[in-house]
Amino acid sequence: MFIRPAIQKLHPYVPGEQPKVKGLIKLNTNENPYPPSPLVLEAVKDAVDGRLRLYPNPTAQPLREALAKLHKCQPENIIVGNGSDELLAMAVRAFVEQAVSARLKDSRTVVQYFRPSYSLYPVLAAIHGAKTNAVPLSEDFSLPSISSAQLDDGWNFEAALSFITTPNAPTGRGYATAELDRLCLKQRGVVVLDEAYVDFAGEHAMNLALKHPHVLVARTFSKAYSLCFQRVGYFVGSAPLIEALQKIRDSYNVNGLGQVAALATLSDLKYYRGHFKRIIGSREQTVRFLEELDFQISPSETNFIFARPPKFPARLWLEKLRDKKILVRWFDHPEIRDYLRITIGTEEEMEILLKTVRSLLR
Amino acid sequence: MFIRPAIQKLHPYVPGEQPKVKGLIKLNTNENPYPPSPLVLEAVKDAVDGRLRLYPNPTAQPLREALAKLHKCQPENIIVGNGSDELLAMAVRAFVEQAVSARLKDSRTVVQYFRPSYSLYPVLAAIHGAKTNAVPLSEDFSLPSISSAQLDDGWNFEAALSFITTPNAPTGRGYATAELDRLCLKQRGVVVLDEAYVDFAGEHAMNLALKHPHVLVARTFSKAYSLCFQRVGYFVGSAPLIEALQKIRDSYNVNGLGQVAALATLSDLKYYRGHFKRIIGSREQTVRFLEELDFQISPSETNFIFARPPKFPARLWLEKLRDKKILVRWFDHPEIRDYLRITIGTEEEMEILLKTVRSLLR
Repeated sequence: MFIRPAIQKLHPYVPGEQPKVKGLIKLNTNENPYPPSPLVLEAVKDAVDGRLRLYPNPTAQPLREALAKLHKCQPENIIVGNGSDELLAMAVRAFVEQAVSARLKDSRTVVQYFRPSYSLYPVLAAIHGAKTNAVPLSEDFSLPSISSAQLDDGWNFEAALSFITTPNAPTGRGYATAELDRLCLKQRGVVVLDEAYVDFAGEHAMNLALKHPHVLVARTFSKAYSLCFQRVGYFVGSAPLIEALQKIRDSYNVNGLGQVAALATLSDLKYYRGHFKRIIGSREQTVRFLEELDFQISPSETNFIFARPPKFPARLWLEKLRDKKILVRWFDHPEIRDYLRITIGTEEEMEILLKTVRSLLR
Repeated sequence: MFIRPAIQKLHPYVPGEQPKVKGLIKLNTNENPYPPSPLVLEAVKDAVDGRLRLYPNPTAQPLREALAKLHKCQPENIIVGNGSDELLAMAVRAFVEQAVSARLKDSRTVVQYFRPSYSLYPVLAAIHGAKTNAVPLSEDFSLPSISSAQLDDGWNFEAALSFITTPNAPTGRGYATAELDRLCLKQRGVVVLDEAYVDFAGEHAMNLALKHPHVLVARTFSKAYSLCFQRVGYFVGSAPLIEALQKIRDSYNVNGLGQVAALATLSDLKYYRGHFKRIIGSREQTVRFLEELDFQISPSETNFIFARPPKFPARLWLEKLRDKKILVRWFDHPEIRDYLRITIGTEEEMEILLKTVRSLLR
């Protein structure tokens, strides 16, 4: 009786497990298998002293200045969040009206996205009381082209907010910036291009956030930059959109050591770029080997692969691999029930995975 | 055109300054002047390694277990937030309907609080699109008694959500648990008792969260436990209310090093209790000295005092003290424009404050 009916009915987002069991090979939540740069660890350790008693910089100003330099924009074009998840939720609150109001034009209440994609989007819409428009991707998980029947029929070019994960999760597919640009040009509401995995892709769409007034690009330090533990993500976009988000932010939303870690990360990007290459190399090798074993694999531009396994149902693979102490991700959604999402770990971890897969197939 | 009109009109919450100027005496944001326990600093440093690449425990499970032990309840009675501010905002989202829906009984859209109090409450209501009911405290800032005309006229016993800061900020006054209990008993909606400053008070109301199904107690590691930088707060309450909040939480809302720090804090509570005594002693001495100088001071059960200064307007005091490198807080609200809120710092800082006040009065 105390809780909003919408929340009572809500099916919350289920994150991948963070098991405490030792010795597990953890290929289930797209973490980078390599540690942060030694400079980052040193910077964080150096900040652990009596200053923990003080509030952190409320706007993450030094970090925003460094990010502005990196992306060739102004600090006013950047907001930092407690992970990019916080910012995705804030975008719904800032740009989408609740669906209860009959006075509002319908599209102002719509959160839109392709499916399959990040399963948090419908949850965020449900919490806010927004409507959702989930438009299927092409059969091979590519983006439906701008003049296709698929888009013209299902996609709402007036939707208040559209989320596009690029490269996509859980499919791993990248979308061409030119194609995204065409979509953004036709779109009348806000578009968030969630580039959580972009460091493992061939191209990025940051320039769309800087040239369109209604496009935001989401980035995170979690995955590519090995800082999941610290919760730091950001949006880049036009100053009015960023300002609206700043207004509804919790006052001190980004913890201080997270700010320190992210700032230090930016001073050692070449360390990370080396690891990106290594992970991409390992991904391509893993794809080749798994394809030889009759796995069907969607082309990946991320640090994970989305694979349709042979012989047993995907769910059974999940369990069989788990029995062998390898954790991968399986989603209980009708469209993707036949797939496994496998994070690219270290070379050693991928060798163990392949060995295990071979022995399970025998 | 992209931003919800309610957000365009919003006046955001303004946090106290976090200036970078060296040598300032910072008595403006109620931080503890003493550092965290050495055990806490050690625990955090020990956690700064390759594990930063991994997601933190999504539900802060070990911390919730330790808190449950401390408060003699179950982990199901506890939710941890990115500071208690995040949880206050989530309470609005979980328990209050937007005011746009004409079909809903009015009180379900109401966020209620006493004034003056934490100026974040009306901002949270405005972001959500809820109505507010701000009921004045008694003239001496005490809680209007349960049968008074003040409560019977203005207070809405059906309001979806009532925030009560106890002890109150910015006034510093504590409210008797018995009185809060009487109010909770009459209240039909959810009540959040925000005990951010309770470690500096004579009593706490934690048992009200454990005996009433509709009462939540908010606590934070920020102020009393010298961890503002780390962003860790929590709610205690009945399992159904906590579960509703868990459903709308960001998946990994509490950063990992914050969890480590909070957990280590609970293992060394006696360290902090020593500082509480010291701060309370310093507070009482500061009150006595300032009263001798004709400041009118509201009885404080917090780590700050709320003082009506003599001779110059409060705003001028703010500036004069600032010129002398002492930062206090002044609020530009009609009801409290004549007051300064002064955080209790170290004994040395309070001596400098008193010396400076005396010289300004001369």
